[in-house]
Amino acid sequence: MALSFAVHHRDGVARAGVLHTPHGAVETPTFMPVGTQATVKGLTPDMLRDINARIILGNTYHLALRPGDELIAEQGGLHRFMGWDRPILTDSGGFQVFSLASQVKITDRGATFRSHIDGSPLELTPERAVDIQQNLGSDIAMVLDECPPGDAGPEVVRAAVRRSVGWAERCKRHHTRPDQAMFAIVQGGTSLDLRAECARELVAMDFPGYALGGFSVGESPEAMHAALPGCAALLPEDKPRYLMGVGRPEDLLAGVAAGIDLFDCVMPTRNGRNALAFTADGPIRLRNARHRRDSAPVESGCPCVCCATFSRAYLHHLFAADEMLGPTLLSAHNLSFYLRLMAGARAAVAGGRFPDYRAGCLARWRADS
Amino acid sequence: MALSFAVHHRDGVARAGVLHTPHGAVETPTFMPVGTQATVKGLTPDMLRDINARIILGNTYHLALRPGDELIAEQGGLHRFMGWDRPILTDSGGFQVFSLASQVKITDRGATFRSHIDGSPLELTPERAVDIQQNLGSDIAMVLDECPPGDAGPEVVRAAVRRSVGWAERCKRHHTRPDQAMFAIVQGGTSLDLRAECARELVAMDFPGYALGGFSVGESPEAMHAALPGCAALLPEDKPRYLMGVGRPEDLLAGVAAGIDLFDCVMPTRNGRNALAFTADGPIRLRNARHRRDSAPVESGCPCVCCATFSRAYLHHLFAADEMLGPTLLSAHNLSFYLRLMAGARAAVAGGRFPDYRAGCLARWRADS
Repeated sequence: MALSFAVHHRDGVARAGVLHTPHGAVETPTFMPVGTQATVKGLTPDMLRDINARIILGNTYHLALRPGDELIAEQGGLHRFMGWDRPILTDSGGFQVFSLASQVKITDRGATFRSHIDGSPLELTPERAVDIQQNLGSDIAMVLDECPPGDAGPEVVRAAVRRSVGWAERCKRHHTRPDQAMFAIVQGGTSLDLRAECARELVAMDFPGYALGGFSVGESPEAMHAALPGCAALLPEDKPRYLMGVGRPEDLLAGVAAGIDLFDCVMPTRNGRNALAFTADGPIRLRNARHRRDSAPVESGCPCVCCATFSRAYLHHLFAADEMLGPTLLSAHNLSFYLRLMAGARAAVAGGRFPDYRAGCLARWRADS
Repeated sequence: MALSFAVHHRDGVARAGVLHTPHGAVETPTFMPVGTQATVKGLTPDMLRDINARIILGNTYHLALRPGDELIAEQGGLHRFMGWDRPILTDSGGFQVFSLASQVKITDRGATFRSHIDGSPLELTPERAVDIQQNLGSDIAMVLDECPPGDAGPEVVRAAVRRSVGWAERCKRHHTRPDQAMFAIVQGGTSLDLRAECARELVAMDFPGYALGGFSVGESPEAMHAALPGCAALLPEDKPRYLMGVGRPEDLLAGVAAGIDLFDCVMPTRNGRNALAFTADGPIRLRNARHRRDSAPVESGCPCVCCATFSRAYLHHLFAADEMLGPTLLSAHNLSFYLRLMAGARAAVAGGRFPDYRAGCLARWRADS
């Protein structure tokens, strides 16, 4: 058994639990920093440990293309290759094929496409997605799914659900690695009926965890927040639930309120590289001239390396001078913010005060923006 | 007294000593990582401490232009601004004006030029160079000097020496900060006579330390190695000696052999950003395909974060994928190499075996290249 999960506290449908993996335990709900190319951009593993990251995400599509999953397997697996000894979840590569590759053609067999790096022709089938992730040796692998665009019509979404269910079954059948768990992905777009149909069939296959896919592809935040409780309720109570690719801090809180346990998003690192910092009082733009002589830390009270040592004036200078240390420090801070937000959510769920915690966060963020 | 220096061991004219500054002691000979814009590119202060950097260099010209020396003074000085609590040496800005600015005009009063950032007209006089460095609050400031190009004729070099001597006197007269020492700079190009004349006048002014300038501006390494012993011998035995802007590992060893105590150069960090690593067996290029599956560390036995955790294959991947972590890790490694090279030189001088140490290093580097 590669994975076990226990819910320790509930507050409404929000829950706090612990996920046990071959590389250690993860308290949930939590956020997974994105390490697309075998590195969370600009941060060393020590920096990730310093901000209490417990589990990170790797991107199967990118790693299979470069440096290649077989090379990583030869080098002892993704954990050893990138110097990260805590848990890793890998996606299946499907979402990146649809969003990054060119000449994508999808059949029941799988997807053919051309690499975004060198244009070479490639194929990703359910079986290949499993092989890649087994080579990477992540603690949690994801089934290959078809993620239709956010504006796809109902017939397209229905076909994607049918195909995704079939692919999930093939992934499960092909998967052999005993120290790796595989999660299924519920698609269905904005249709609760299709989501329910997809979830019913996947739950019958008894995966050790379930994800909601297709929630970061263009719908409004309000529509997502409204849909989340119904969709999360389709997933087993006793298994971890993962909301893929979402999102802003307020979206994470909406997810926790709906009973989600795991999140990932490039937003904290991508925004950090672009000089936008998340803080308890709302986001701030460090390039803004008002921070030029601001001796306060980015977020007072934050224990991260950025806030413990440096001023907003220093960060403003680093970005003005195009120095690499700016993106590095602000990525560390933003991840620290996300991880502390989730740690606060866990404590609030355990204390039966999650609605107050969520409302308090939202009120503070709105007050300053 | 902002600074004291004691030589503890000698081996020939090579020496090992300790420099005491307001921000702590520095064992010499040592190398100073270059932090041009209030950051050693890509490294946090913690990373610099982890590789045993004891003193770093800041660039007066860059800092005066951006974010401005008065802003840094308001923010508590350069140490606090950049989160570095160990010693800092600042250059005078002269070399950067001559190499980076445009429309440079030099008179006895000082240099006028246009900023390389926004073209604004600026002036750097000896007094202004002192004011800037007093605002920055470095432990060691440098006098403003005129550094003529490497191919300048004897009359140009002679005029630069006369002007530099006058400027040094004005810098000394203008300098008031009691917690900052000011070093003089001996110019004179390839003429030992001019160097001797310059040194004689500067030594008569009784500065607490002396630098050799104009040694990284185009002369051959052989010419520099040949000139160093004679030039270093012009400087007081009991004061620290600094060879500015030099250089390759073999140049540092030549400097130590000539009795130099302090070095700085952008080479370890610049080369690190370009995937070239210094190792005990000579330099290696991490982009080379031969490292694609090389599971060895960049340099075996090196205790830096790069070598303790990661393989050459991982570094090769980071550079191929254009990931920021590659330049960060390899800058840390190359600085670690330079600092360990100097630590080895100190131990060798103390043990009376510096010539063997130097010859052993050179033989190993040549064997692999």
